[in-house]
Amino acid sequence: MPGPPPPLPESEAESLDVWGFRDTHFDISENGHVIIRGNRYELSGKELPRFLPWVREVLETDVNAKDVHRPQYPTAIAEPVLSEGLLAALRTVVSDTQIETNGEVRMRHGHGHTQEEMFSIKYAHLGRIPDVVVYPESEEEVAKLVEVAKQQNATLVPYGGGTNVTDALRCFPSEQRSIISVDMRRLNRVLWIDRTNMLACIQAGAVGRHIMAELKKHGLTMGHEPDSVEFSTLGGWIATNASGMKKNRYGNIEDLVLDVNVVTAGGTLERSSCSPRESVGMDLRRLIFGSEGTLGIVTSAVVKVFSLPEVQEYGSVLFPSFEQGFKFMYDLMREASPPASVRLVDNLQFQFGLALKPKSTAMGKFKSRLERFFVTKIKGFAGEKMVACTLVFEGSRSEVDQQQRDLYRIAARHGGMKAGGENGRRGYQLTYSIAYIRDFLMNYYIIAESFETSVAWSDAMALCTNVKRRLLDEYARRKLPGKPFVTARVTQLYRTGVCIYFYFGFYYKGISNPQEIYLDLENIARDEILKCGGSLSHHHGVGKLRQAYLPRIMSPAALQWKRDLKKSLDPANLFGAGNQDLDSQ
Amino acid sequence: MPGPPPPLPESEAESLDVWGFRDTHFDISENGHVIIRGNRYELSGKELPRFLPWVREVLETDVNAKDVHRPQYPTAIAEPVLSEGLLAALRTVVSDTQIETNGEVRMRHGHGHTQEEMFSIKYAHLGRIPDVVVYPESEEEVAKLVEVAKQQNATLVPYGGGTNVTDALRCFPSEQRSIISVDMRRLNRVLWIDRTNMLACIQAGAVGRHIMAELKKHGLTMGHEPDSVEFSTLGGWIATNASGMKKNRYGNIEDLVLDVNVVTAGGTLERSSCSPRESVGMDLRRLIFGSEGTLGIVTSAVVKVFSLPEVQEYGSVLFPSFEQGFKFMYDLMREASPPASVRLVDNLQFQFGLALKPKSTAMGKFKSRLERFFVTKIKGFAGEKMVACTLVFEGSRSEVDQQQRDLYRIAARHGGMKAGGENGRRGYQLTYSIAYIRDFLMNYYIIAESFETSVAWSDAMALCTNVKRRLLDEYARRKLPGKPFVTARVTQLYRTGVCIYFYFGFYYKGISNPQEIYLDLENIARDEILKCGGSLSHHHGVGKLRQAYLPRIMSPAALQWKRDLKKSLDPANLFGAGNQDLDSQ
Repeated sequence: MPGPPPPLPESEAESLDVWGFRDTHFDISENGHVIIRGNRYELSGKELPRFLPWVREVLETDVNAKDVHRPQYPTAIAEPVLSEGLLAALRTVVSDTQIETNGEVRMRHGHGHTQEEMFSIKYAHLGRIPDVVVYPESEEEVAKLVEVAKQQNATLVPYGGGTNVTDALRCFPSEQRSIISVDMRRLNRVLWIDRTNMLACIQAGAVGRHIMAELKKHGLTMGHEPDSVEFSTLGGWIATNASGMKKNRYGNIEDLVLDVNVVTAGGTLERSSCSPRESVGMDLRRLIFGSEGTLGIVTSAVVKVFSLPEVQEYGSVLFPSFEQGFKFMYDLMREASPPASVRLVDNLQFQFGLALKPKSTAMGKFKSRLERFFVTKIKGFAGEKMVACTLVFEGSRSEVDQQQRDLYRIAARHGGMKAGGENGRRGYQLTYSIAYIRDFLMNYYIIAESFETSVAWSDAMALCTNVKRRLLDEYARRKLPGKPFVTARVTQLYRTGVCIYFYFGFYYKGISNPQEIYLDLENIARDEILKCGGSLSHHHGVGKLRQAYLPRIMSPAALQWKRDLKKSLDPANLFGAGNQDLDSQ
Repeated sequence: MPGPPPPLPESEAESLDVWGFRDTHFDISENGHVIIRGNRYELSGKELPRFLPWVREVLETDVNAKDVHRPQYPTAIAEPVLSEGLLAALRTVVSDTQIETNGEVRMRHGHGHTQEEMFSIKYAHLGRIPDVVVYPESEEEVAKLVEVAKQQNATLVPYGGGTNVTDALRCFPSEQRSIISVDMRRLNRVLWIDRTNMLACIQAGAVGRHIMAELKKHGLTMGHEPDSVEFSTLGGWIATNASGMKKNRYGNIEDLVLDVNVVTAGGTLERSSCSPRESVGMDLRRLIFGSEGTLGIVTSAVVKVFSLPEVQEYGSVLFPSFEQGFKFMYDLMREASPPASVRLVDNLQFQFGLALKPKSTAMGKFKSRLERFFVTKIKGFAGEKMVACTLVFEGSRSEVDQQQRDLYRIAARHGGMKAGGENGRRGYQLTYSIAYIRDFLMNYYIIAESFETSVAWSDAMALCTNVKRRLLDEYARRKLPGKPFVTARVTQLYRTGVCIYFYFGFYYKGISNPQEIYLDLENIARDEILKCGGSLSHHHGVGKLRQAYLPRIMSPAALQWKRDLKKSLDPANLFGAGNQDLDSQ
């Protein structure tokens, strides 16, 4: 058992009021261009001169770098509901350095990254937040916290990276009990690595980037890379049933996790050994996937690990249209072994990527190459229709060679043109820096967020089209400013369907409740998704944001089963996160 | 919705007293050789002259074809606990042709194929059996049966193929209520096939061989082939969390099933659509996998389907020792994409296969080829040490070519020699006819059965050795006749471990309670398996046979969770199969 983890260096400090590391944020440069401050990412320090003009063009509004919607963070912070008795009881379990009552820290533990939450902490009021944050350093401490909660009539809400986009951490305004946020991030050790069986046991509070770094020292990887991998935790991945961008090679979280330890209201769920696969009756551990904090706290998990791939290569393909790109993906899944990751962006998102090109010679190079495409080689490619597919190949040299041969052959059949590894790599790197953009844009009266679904192949194209049209129609009907930004990408392929990921945003100057309007429109999009046969969520989860839709996807008996199960397994609702409408206390 | 299924032709009738089709059984020929009657299997109608001598040699006993332990089937059949009220209520739900009270049919519905059960129906007393068998023909009828059970204070036990080997169908002697066996085999339609998304919706009572035949008409397969595929049902696969021999290509049952409809005490669990993958909170459908009849009755499932493979080829490799074969498998899993199925038998099981060779020129050919091995090419191969690995390749021509190249290269590194497709094919075909042998041998005072486990790679060799040694030691210590037959094969490969399948049998003439002695020894083997880090079961399940071991693999909290869950979801214990120690009424 390794010793306690060292404290994080200042360079890894995270912001409380916006996404990400404190050393990174979007800004306006001296030249009036958008720039990313810091030096953490590839784009860091670079000016993006095309970005603001492009935003103005797309939103058909006069976004002005000088007209700032200044954040009021921290808006009102509720006083904690915290008795001396509870504090004293907590002190019998953990040391003072593991107890935090600071208002901003408590507030940070009461939200994730939905647009409503981020708007609230800057411009409105988040409402009820946790009353105290506790940082356990062992499974035993977590178990003792459950006893404290029982005795003191408090409720526990586990906290991992705080990156959810489902209101999963939001507190019930009516919660009378003290809310203890259990921040798991000091439970972050890799407990053991078993190279023979390719397993590792990792504590649940370990953050994705640390897991990657630690395993890399041993030439290994877990291969799980959700877009939030820099901040989200193993326990959070399990609790939300997360998906990683390289799932084609490594699987989603449910494929990677072989065993979990969970502290519940009735004691600790654990097993004597970890089998490759088994049939030992109802597998309660499977209930923990997607439990969103409502059944207990995951303390550690045994996961599969893989040798670092011999080869990692990026690639990209341009297609004349989204439809052609989509058909390529379908055939790829039928006819070949797809690479670790395959993503297809629509035309607007393709343009978005171009708008984020820094001012550099590379830009010029790409432009000229692009021109060559249009003018000479592939006259049919229209700027307002073409789309891009980005690729990550991982594996042995021969595996990757085979995948590339098959893929580019199938792509060519659908009019696809190879557009190089550099554009592919850039597409994936963008994922991390782009996550900062939302908070930046909010400063200029732009509100935006993503939502996703999974859907059968046969329904996917219609779903994309209908969701976009419905949002555009409803937006226009409300006479909201300019035009909204609505775009889709296909981010995961399965034999039977795909994951579709939407961005939706708009300019809200002059509107006092943009977060409510946004939510209203997002709900309309979700209604359309369900009508088109899409799932309630592919990997974000339900939380509180989508719980009202559960009756549309599950039969009354199934819903009642869930409520009965919660009541039976946690009769006092000690795990009071209340997601999935499980706040029946 | 297709019409009701046609009745099964007489040629597909199954035996009530022994395994399998009525048209097939082992027998002694006029020449005094073992022969398989009928013409269903490749071995059917062929004499196996080596078999009895080999059995005598291995068991070190004088097994005599003339000394028959004549079965008394059917031994005492308990009178049904069946009120006029219950019968009348059943008649409001189903027609008379769907209700069966015949004693032998009821008895058949009260057991699977454990050695104790099969011994009991022939030589002892099975005890409590179902009081009535009902054959629903729609999900609605199943739901109505639940209402009848509620009103009439009866209990329901679903029945699929009756092939379990876990005492899962055995009735509690103390059950006072009427036991209604719900035979699902008339719910056997393929409801729809979706070629675009490669899905099929199939009723739960459909038997494996019918699913294969029906899908084959469309050029498709589900790819799920447990050894019992001729008789077991889709619903049974789900309820036991089954594994198929080609899982490397198609996955196990949990990978293949995307959605299930389940009739429960609280109504029908169902979903509005079927997603490729999703995160919609706790997935209660996952509880149904391995539920063994205790939570409800699966009525249909949406499963993945696959195009029939372009190529299906068999193969086999001989290795000088089990250890070398095992190391080959480990490297194969690490370095290459394994074929659909890879199995490694130990030396005794290899000999068993040879003993089942029919008297034919093929036999002579093989022998001489074998001699060539020994004498000229590979002098190191010892008859009492060498083992065989059998292979099934499925896929496109190029996939299979690649798999074969990689596999034979790795095999050669471990001293493996290609032994041809014919031997491989024979090994797999044997699976089906060999299933009949146990009932035949019981006629000659031999009792035998299989049990299995899954275990990490690093513990697998020691587990095999220790389990065998322990059984041999305990057998000798009891001064039982001759020597027992104990042999192992590796039947499934996973990244982190393997499935190991044991056969154990012995000669019991002169012993009055062989089934009890067998059970005692099987329990000792299970104890050793658990000590060696093996799982309680890889795919057979828990049932009642292994429920006493649950506290050894799960923490008290996990066990209590299961009991609470059962109580909460089925408070009246309407689904009273009582497996996994869930008979808490």
